[in-house]
Amino acid sequence: MPHENFFQTPGGELAGKGLGAGQAVFDAGEVAAAGWRILEGEVSLPVAVLRDSALAHNLDWMRRFMAAYGVELAPHGKTTMSPELFAMQLDAGAWGITLATAPQVHDAYRHGVRRVLMANQLVDRANMAIISGLLADPEFEFCCLVDSAANAQALGTFFAGRGQRLRLLLEIGVAGGRTGVRDQAQAREVTQAIARWPQSLALVGVETYEGVLKDEAGIRALLRRTVATLQALRENGALAEPVSLLSGAGSAWYDVVAEEFAETAKDPGVRVLLRPGCYLTHDAGAYREADARIHAANPVARSMAEGLRPALQLWACVQSRPEPGRAIVGLGKRDAAFDAGLPLPALHYRAGDDAPRDAPAHWRLGAMMDQHAFLELAGDDDLQVGDLLCFDISHPCLTFDKWRHLLRVDDAWRVTGAVRTFF
Amino acid sequence: MPHENFFQTPGGELAGKGLGAGQAVFDAGEVAAAGWRILEGEVSLPVAVLRDSALAHNLDWMRRFMAAYGVELAPHGKTTMSPELFAMQLDAGAWGITLATAPQVHDAYRHGVRRVLMANQLVDRANMAIISGLLADPEFEFCCLVDSAANAQALGTFFAGRGQRLRLLLEIGVAGGRTGVRDQAQAREVTQAIARWPQSLALVGVETYEGVLKDEAGIRALLRRTVATLQALRENGALAEPVSLLSGAGSAWYDVVAEEFAETAKDPGVRVLLRPGCYLTHDAGAYREADARIHAANPVARSMAEGLRPALQLWACVQSRPEPGRAIVGLGKRDAAFDAGLPLPALHYRAGDDAPRDAPAHWRLGAMMDQHAFLELAGDDDLQVGDLLCFDISHPCLTFDKWRHLLRVDDAWRVTGAVRTFF
Repeated sequence: MPHENFFQTPGGELAGKGLGAGQAVFDAGEVAAAGWRILEGEVSLPVAVLRDSALAHNLDWMRRFMAAYGVELAPHGKTTMSPELFAMQLDAGAWGITLATAPQVHDAYRHGVRRVLMANQLVDRANMAIISGLLADPEFEFCCLVDSAANAQALGTFFAGRGQRLRLLLEIGVAGGRTGVRDQAQAREVTQAIARWPQSLALVGVETYEGVLKDEAGIRALLRRTVATLQALRENGALAEPVSLLSGAGSAWYDVVAEEFAETAKDPGVRVLLRPGCYLTHDAGAYREADARIHAANPVARSMAEGLRPALQLWACVQSRPEPGRAIVGLGKRDAAFDAGLPLPALHYRAGDDAPRDAPAHWRLGAMMDQHAFLELAGDDDLQVGDLLCFDISHPCLTFDKWRHLLRVDDAWRVTGAVRTFF
Repeated sequence: MPHENFFQTPGGELAGKGLGAGQAVFDAGEVAAAGWRILEGEVSLPVAVLRDSALAHNLDWMRRFMAAYGVELAPHGKTTMSPELFAMQLDAGAWGITLATAPQVHDAYRHGVRRVLMANQLVDRANMAIISGLLADPEFEFCCLVDSAANAQALGTFFAGRGQRLRLLLEIGVAGGRTGVRDQAQAREVTQAIARWPQSLALVGVETYEGVLKDEAGIRALLRRTVATLQALRENGALAEPVSLLSGAGSAWYDVVAEEFAETAKDPGVRVLLRPGCYLTHDAGAYREADARIHAANPVARSMAEGLRPALQLWACVQSRPEPGRAIVGLGKRDAAFDAGLPLPALHYRAGDDAPRDAPAHWRLGAMMDQHAFLELAGDDDLQVGDLLCFDISHPCLTFDKWRHLLRVDDAWRVTGAVRTFF
């Protein structure tokens, strides 16, 4: 078994799809040093890549956008679940990382993140225990959402038993929406339940997620109700800390949230946290559409001339040309999101070409199976078995979670490093 | 940082979602010893579980089915990508494991699998290098598919350069389908290209994937064409080994493939390999439907009285009851397949109950977001925040790839072990 020696390496190892073929398991430093060239066939396909130049652009873009509104960025980490990308976001000035579940919080913590907004309810006992374990570290700053008296009661009981105090944001929701209190009566029930546990629960602010709505007027109304709720809680002395938190924003409407929360952000007694997660990699589908709206509507975005850039792409290889109008590509549902549009052919490269050419506009994927994509083209298009195709994607979240690592690349598709994911 | 000591463990570690909360990183032996009880809140939710009794039933069922037709099982490993499940399948008599990509083959190899049918073309250079590396082990038995002269030429060149010989199956396809030669002329082109590389390529059989078709008559015609192609190649002396391979079958039509290939399987010069992958866990959606057809149509299946059992389920927690007819459950697209139907509520459990009750038939998921499911119920249904729900799933492949490990459980939902996945 001549290969066994490759398979035992210390922590930080990378193995599996989308790596070079020289050996079996790498660490991130080896990947950076190897300098694999995707166009030279030095990386196993399909591969998910992050363009360094686009990441840097997007990090800077969002930093400037948030600064213009005096609000802070707590990017949603569920998108990438990558400690290396979290570190980039924190280095670019993010307040902390938003996460969705206790195991996600735990994974972020064990890779160095010390400030987390869990934009979700903490409900089952084992997840409470995971958070409790992390709260034993006094350097760890954490809050999560609550929207029911039943949950407040369960949390109060649990954390009282641990001698700990859990920080909570009241979640504001809308009828027909997802989580969050629908009205004042529900809000009052929850805050009263929290107030019964002053030693173990601390209400420190309010939160909403406007992304369940599709119309701007409805979104602005929800955001104003959220601000009004915060102000009422402050006036009633219901908040446990001198600085309250006000949080909103997914990746599609963060401009509107920034506009609505900007006035409140001027109050030194309020910290405003916005949570877009997909801005870092952006995409060429659903979020490109959102970006077009933002760029048209928002004065700060307009002032920056260029919007966000798609940073996450996939390279794959044509494996069969069985019929004139059809190519089968080695790329499937195990590799790329398909819930918000299939991957979009962007570039075409044949060994020996100087550089990739733009894929013709009429090339499109008609379907994807687990491990194959069906590319529709014209009968006389020149596409051969072994040619490489680069795809843009729609919905980064469900592409990231197909990969345990992604390669970083420069603009000539040379590998500059790797980031890991923990889903 | 009191938790750092938990984060450094040797190989075989498990961390992340769907584990107990006592500590952060486990190895599989610790999981088995811990004996967590899901109903007692000892496992972080959501969690993906495999029922031991259903796995054992399904392994035995398929072993008996294959034996009745004198064919061998090469289960498709892309479904689970789990070395522990591969080992179970091999222990239950499987000939080897089918895989879809070179990195999958590599992952299986490094976890002990030594006989692989890669039911796919091997196209790009880095993937050829991965396979070449594994072929250095004389104990490793491998073959893959070919359906174009261009690919045969590329493979011949590459493996000649390595001084190795690659074993190939000619893939038979259908017009409007996926990969595979469409007609005799294409087949002849491919076999002639292979014949130019007698030192580096060995044609050892034929393969088809009938799952691209939806009608039984079309499937039987494709299977007969596949058998006829094999016999013609044998008669022409085009096959390089004394025993030829004949392979077909996904998870929906393996009964029809067994029927069509059974006569050929009696020939000592032919080894028939069937490749269903989803039988091991089965499901309560697309494959339950397939199973119903098989059970109605196939005499061997009928003789076994009971069909396959769903072994893969998800437990999740109700996190919000914001409106009378709506519950929000902590389960999302990051946890479960959604491309062949949303997860199906099966059981409902409240702390203190003796045992889970069947979920009412009118409970159903109306939508799923990344981390949330929207459960529709009647306004006066008794479902509370903190209640546990068990879901059946449809499409095991895209559920498996959301988890780096799954817990094995007994029929009382006590954890008996864990299996890892490598996607």
